[in-house]
Amino acid sequence: MIQPVENGARLELHSPVKLPNASAFLWNKKMMVHMNCRGYAVAQFMQPEPTKYAHAPNLEAKTFMQPEQPYYAHHPGRFFYIKDEETNSLFSTPYAPVKTPLDNFVFSAGKSDILWKIEHDGLSIEMRLSLPTNEALEQWSFTVKNITSKSRKISIYPYFPVGYMSWMNQSGEYDANLNAIVCSSITPYQKYKEYDRIKTLKDKTYLLADTIPTSWEVNQAAFEGEGGLHNPTGIVGEELLKGDARYETPACVFQYRLKLQPEQERTYRFLFGPAKDEKEIEDIGKRYFSDTSENKVTGFDATKREYDDYIAKGKGCLQIKTPDAALDNFVNNWLPRQIYYHGETNRLSTDPQTRNFLQDNMGTGYIQKEVARQAYITALSQQAESGAMPDGILIHEDAELKYINQVPHTDHCVWLPICLKAYLDETNDYALLQEKVPFSDNEKTATVTEHMNRAMLWLYKNRDERGLNYIEQGDWCDPMNMVGPKGKGVSGWLSMATGYALKTWAGICRNNTTIGLADDFSRKADELNRAINTHLWDGDWYARGITDDNVVFGVRKDLEGRIFLNTQGWALLSGCADADKSDKIIASVQKELETPYGVEMLAPSYTKMREDVGRVTQKFPGSAENGAVYNHAAAFYIFGLYTTDHSEKAYEVLRKMIPGPDEADLVQRGQLPVFIPNYYRGAFRQFPRTAGRSSQLFNTGAAPWLYRCLIDGLFGLKGDVDGLHIAPKLPKAWNRAEVVRQFRGATFKVDIQRESGISKTKISVNGQILKTSVITNIEPRVYEVDVRISEM
Amino acid sequence: MIQPVENGARLELHSPVKLPNASAFLWNKKMMVHMNCRGYAVAQFMQPEPTKYAHAPNLEAKTFMQPEQPYYAHHPGRFFYIKDEETNSLFSTPYAPVKTPLDNFVFSAGKSDILWKIEHDGLSIEMRLSLPTNEALEQWSFTVKNITSKSRKISIYPYFPVGYMSWMNQSGEYDANLNAIVCSSITPYQKYKEYDRIKTLKDKTYLLADTIPTSWEVNQAAFEGEGGLHNPTGIVGEELLKGDARYETPACVFQYRLKLQPEQERTYRFLFGPAKDEKEIEDIGKRYFSDTSENKVTGFDATKREYDDYIAKGKGCLQIKTPDAALDNFVNNWLPRQIYYHGETNRLSTDPQTRNFLQDNMGTGYIQKEVARQAYITALSQQAESGAMPDGILIHEDAELKYINQVPHTDHCVWLPICLKAYLDETNDYALLQEKVPFSDNEKTATVTEHMNRAMLWLYKNRDERGLNYIEQGDWCDPMNMVGPKGKGVSGWLSMATGYALKTWAGICRNNTTIGLADDFSRKADELNRAINTHLWDGDWYARGITDDNVVFGVRKDLEGRIFLNTQGWALLSGCADADKSDKIIASVQKELETPYGVEMLAPSYTKMREDVGRVTQKFPGSAENGAVYNHAAAFYIFGLYTTDHSEKAYEVLRKMIPGPDEADLVQRGQLPVFIPNYYRGAFRQFPRTAGRSSQLFNTGAAPWLYRCLIDGLFGLKGDVDGLHIAPKLPKAWNRAEVVRQFRGATFKVDIQRESGISKTKISVNGQILKTSVITNIEPRVYEVDVRISEM
Repeated sequence: MIQPVENGARLELHSPVKLPNASAFLWNKKMMVHMNCRGYAVAQFMQPEPTKYAHAPNLEAKTFMQPEQPYYAHHPGRFFYIKDEETNSLFSTPYAPVKTPLDNFVFSAGKSDILWKIEHDGLSIEMRLSLPTNEALEQWSFTVKNITSKSRKISIYPYFPVGYMSWMNQSGEYDANLNAIVCSSITPYQKYKEYDRIKTLKDKTYLLADTIPTSWEVNQAAFEGEGGLHNPTGIVGEELLKGDARYETPACVFQYRLKLQPEQERTYRFLFGPAKDEKEIEDIGKRYFSDTSENKVTGFDATKREYDDYIAKGKGCLQIKTPDAALDNFVNNWLPRQIYYHGETNRLSTDPQTRNFLQDNMGTGYIQKEVARQAYITALSQQAESGAMPDGILIHEDAELKYINQVPHTDHCVWLPICLKAYLDETNDYALLQEKVPFSDNEKTATVTEHMNRAMLWLYKNRDERGLNYIEQGDWCDPMNMVGPKGKGVSGWLSMATGYALKTWAGICRNNTTIGLADDFSRKADELNRAINTHLWDGDWYARGITDDNVVFGVRKDLEGRIFLNTQGWALLSGCADADKSDKIIASVQKELETPYGVEMLAPSYTKMREDVGRVTQKFPGSAENGAVYNHAAAFYIFGLYTTDHSEKAYEVLRKMIPGPDEADLVQRGQLPVFIPNYYRGAFRQFPRTAGRSSQLFNTGAAPWLYRCLIDGLFGLKGDVDGLHIAPKLPKAWNRAEVVRQFRGATFKVDIQRESGISKTKISVNGQILKTSVITNIEPRVYEVDVRISEM
Repeated sequence: MIQPVENGARLELHSPVKLPNASAFLWNKKMMVHMNCRGYAVAQFMQPEPTKYAHAPNLEAKTFMQPEQPYYAHHPGRFFYIKDEETNSLFSTPYAPVKTPLDNFVFSAGKSDILWKIEHDGLSIEMRLSLPTNEALEQWSFTVKNITSKSRKISIYPYFPVGYMSWMNQSGEYDANLNAIVCSSITPYQKYKEYDRIKTLKDKTYLLADTIPTSWEVNQAAFEGEGGLHNPTGIVGEELLKGDARYETPACVFQYRLKLQPEQERTYRFLFGPAKDEKEIEDIGKRYFSDTSENKVTGFDATKREYDDYIAKGKGCLQIKTPDAALDNFVNNWLPRQIYYHGETNRLSTDPQTRNFLQDNMGTGYIQKEVARQAYITALSQQAESGAMPDGILIHEDAELKYINQVPHTDHCVWLPICLKAYLDETNDYALLQEKVPFSDNEKTATVTEHMNRAMLWLYKNRDERGLNYIEQGDWCDPMNMVGPKGKGVSGWLSMATGYALKTWAGICRNNTTIGLADDFSRKADELNRAINTHLWDGDWYARGITDDNVVFGVRKDLEGRIFLNTQGWALLSGCADADKSDKIIASVQKELETPYGVEMLAPSYTKMREDVGRVTQKFPGSAENGAVYNHAAAFYIFGLYTTDHSEKAYEVLRKMIPGPDEADLVQRGQLPVFIPNYYRGAFRQFPRTAGRSSQLFNTGAAPWLYRCLIDGLFGLKGDVDGLHIAPKLPKAWNRAEVVRQFRGATFKVDIQRESGISKTKISVNGQILKTSVITNIEPRVYEVDVRISEM
């Protein structure tokens, strides 16, 4: 059903019905497009806020991407109808809207393009989507080949619906000068002061063709007629009616009538995207469809190559070969790409949540170190002198804190040292700590170290008389908004995270030879751990918090939300759990939260509102934070397991984060292993039918944490001030793993093998036995590292 | 194609394709449902803000009804699939989603129900929608009859899609105890303070059946399968799969398998609507489906009768019989119903715009005098002591000024005397003027007269040095928002309207024997008219206004927006136009603005933004205020024509406000003559293809004004302090009209006939010649009035 090809650079899906919502995504510096295998699409570009240029058939809410996005007949998409003019048989590619069972179907997710290969009715078709690097538009090519032994007369109809653009003004028409269908609209507004912004928007959508069409249609209703999208009336006639849309829903439809001899093929190319005006479209047409360059390469091809190069820059620092080929394929090809996407796009937000911004850039630290470095400086420059971090980081001059960033959360400071540690481990760039950075609320500047100290002290102070951290209207868990709105409730998780942050910062201070600070922060971390053990240990696991009304929750006696994953995973990280408690925690998580699809965030999922916990309890049971396999939280847990040397359990949970490889698992999840989704449906014990189903959302803090788990944990190839530490933690079932690790300009080719009879890991570098487990004095060259680990 | 039946109480449409968007609507005190002839629906209920209980398939914007609402396959609707179990043939009623050409189709718009009568495949089907009076739910009955001579095995599948309820929480399942499909959701929110409101909402949608189904399906995707809505996979099997929806898009689908002998019929009844919880649904089921009453009438039937009675109360004060049967049918049956709807629902708003509220209640004055009386008091109680009226009238305790009501408009005061005059003419209730009413901004109260005086003085003061009224961010024309935002621009229309308001109030004062006031306001009105003639006369018509930068617009030299209707119609009303100017105005309107579908609001329609006029110029040319046949403005013009005795032209324009009667006109408008739409597409000279197309929106100030034109103008049966004034203004082509006029408790049976050889109207009452044209001393009885008018 699925198959990696081109050495894993592409993943193919061979059915349009087994995983109907399987998808892949492309992005560039201006946009993102999420394509479903059947041709449905969600695409947004930045101006500077995310904007759609292909719309639903109705007045859609302005919204983020939705989990488990439902598709329906008129959902935006990119389709081609193919009609045999002699038999009148009709089908569509890639599959929708006609949904004819096809002779052959391949949905091929590439790193820098998305390709379908269809065979049907004696025709072979390839349709391919790629993006340029710096412009918001889609490049489409469509090749049709006659694979029969007789000549064929066919018509091809690209059908790119544009949808309900605006109730205020929408229209569309074919422009012969541009050889484009241009759909125009005006974004609705009411207050006249909004006009200054509205008038700058790219409110047009165009489909620009390299080939003059036989005919066209711009009127959605006229095209569709009484036939419906599965059998449009417009296609019944010999030619389309060349209609326009005048305050009518527009669509971009061309017709190409052509005759194909046996084995003859024909390629058409199209550009689809938003524009300010006709002049911009004209300019795009010239740049992409004329081969004006010296070497006769069209812009269309040149940008494709440029984009290949751009995507190739996100290849990461780890190439693996293990007994698990599907794992290798995902880790080598798709995981770093997903991390790169986060760093490049900031989730298509101009005010990413502070915690997301920092963790996404934790991942970026493995891929684009300079980008990550600047991100820490940007974030800290928006810190208040009190040490408090804002709820979102403004990364565009017109940005403002919106939506969830208007709700106060108390956890943002903890991510600073936790993410910075990964950056420092990778780069050894301790000079960053001496950079001078301003505050947001006055004219002063201070070093990064000073900013960090203030963040840590803010967290340390922001605790109650028990020594636990206030939660206010949420911590990492955004919708946990009613535990502490009165200013009394505390977060068990945040207390642990503060402890871990203090401990981590203490470690950085120690590396930075500021030992006094290090000791002080270490003591404060211990203080947190004592408070946690005093107030939150429930016998077999830690409670999640204590409400405004002094009710401890996430405890055995709760009928719903009895156990939360985050206060177990972070208990391992903060060190509050001793060995005995750790064992109990891990056993409890296994019993209460583990599922075939990963580890759930809480259980049982809430089925009704709990008014002293909040909005999280109102989400559908098993979705998102209400008990899904929320991979971000699962990754924390895995990281905690590796940190505390529970590596067998760690790998067991880690492997479940990736769909497949067996078909039943893929079908249940419904997702291709080309990204980690933000969640798989949980509530496994309550709603087994839907458990495991992917949200299909690829914005998630799980990706960088998974990468860190692989580097620091599974393969144990982590940096520190002294060099590269070698401490692999392979699962029992593996006898060998080969890893190529890029690190501080050097390439480490690491061959890890089990050896019978040894009790201690033996490491040799370029044939020389290493006395410690650290490779020091790293130079920009290739290191052959042989690692022998004991059999278990 | 269309046909009135039951003496005009119903209007039938005999094709589902000729007027594909033809529609009818029902309302009650809690909700409104707008049904399209093919089964698509837009329905909202008040809690207290308008809310949908059947949703689009995606995350829809919260929105008012949209003009020219496009329908698409998954648009919300109410459908029944019918499968012949022996042949597997499938069709759906009323037409969508299968869209099989049917043997016979009737869409029958009734005043208190909507009925379809379908014949197909040897089956006769009636499906009927009605509402209760005081509860938000739809009552559906579905009757199927075997009209062949052999027995039949069929399955009936009511399919009521519920759509994408909420990204936060949505689900659905069949509840055997209730015999209902119950779909549950939670309205999304982020700020915890919103929870108090959210938790009170009716977030469930149910389909409750009177008959236990054979099977059911609640999962939209499972029902539809690969087949699509035109051929759902779920229907292929012998039975539906009894599935549920768990964070999946829900739908309400039942299956009823049945065997019908020749001529045998079977009826099913359903209730569809929103609910807070299962207990409410249970209660509804008991009340509607049990015949617990003494006379064995189920709630279902009892509420239907109660609703018939409720609707019958809106019958109005005018029954006509003219040479134009289609006009008679509309005026006798549908126009007063539309006016009644406005008064009962206030357009489903809790803060209706002040001008809408007053004009809607001008109509209500002809139908429910007490309601209108209270409306004037409510409106004036929200007046500031300065005389200023707010932009919206709050009519619910939780209401606040929203959307367009947050943009300052300067016209609200003018509607007070203009609408009040109609009320006083109809009722002679001058006692209202002595009622004590509070102000909004202090503790004082004052008489209605004093409130009115203040409103008039506010208008009089709110003028510039030329004596013209400031427009600020809009007048009657909401989107004319950039003429005066700097505080200098003036509105020609508002200056005329102020003049007319002052003149009207002066007339009321004169009737109320406060002659000094009357003279003063009359003088002020004259002052306005002089200023208008000095600054706004453009040679053949009046300009629309003068911008902040002192640019006169709506004048001959403008390439777009050269002439505006409102400054012509109101020039007739205010009296600023003398006879010569009036003739020029009327000729100019005919040349520039008249179309086969009525008179346009401006021409040429703007095709690009004019930054010193504003948002109106950005609406699509020919839509809404940008040059549509905007019936509200057209009605003003007609009223002005009748007021100045241009009655032939008045009738010519008036008749075009009603779709039909000829088929080509109906097809072009696409609307049934069961309501006046807010607009027909204009820009006739720019975009003839779409000109005349109805917006299908039935919220419009045109309805009461049209009624007033008929009463005061065409049939000339208007009240005043002294009684009923008789002054019919029949078009030349009519030789006779019979009118039954309900007025101040009496019934006037008026027979108007042309008589050759007379030059002056002759009136006799109950056989007695009337010396004046006024019937005085009216008593609660029947008056036989014979009116003879001259031949022309």
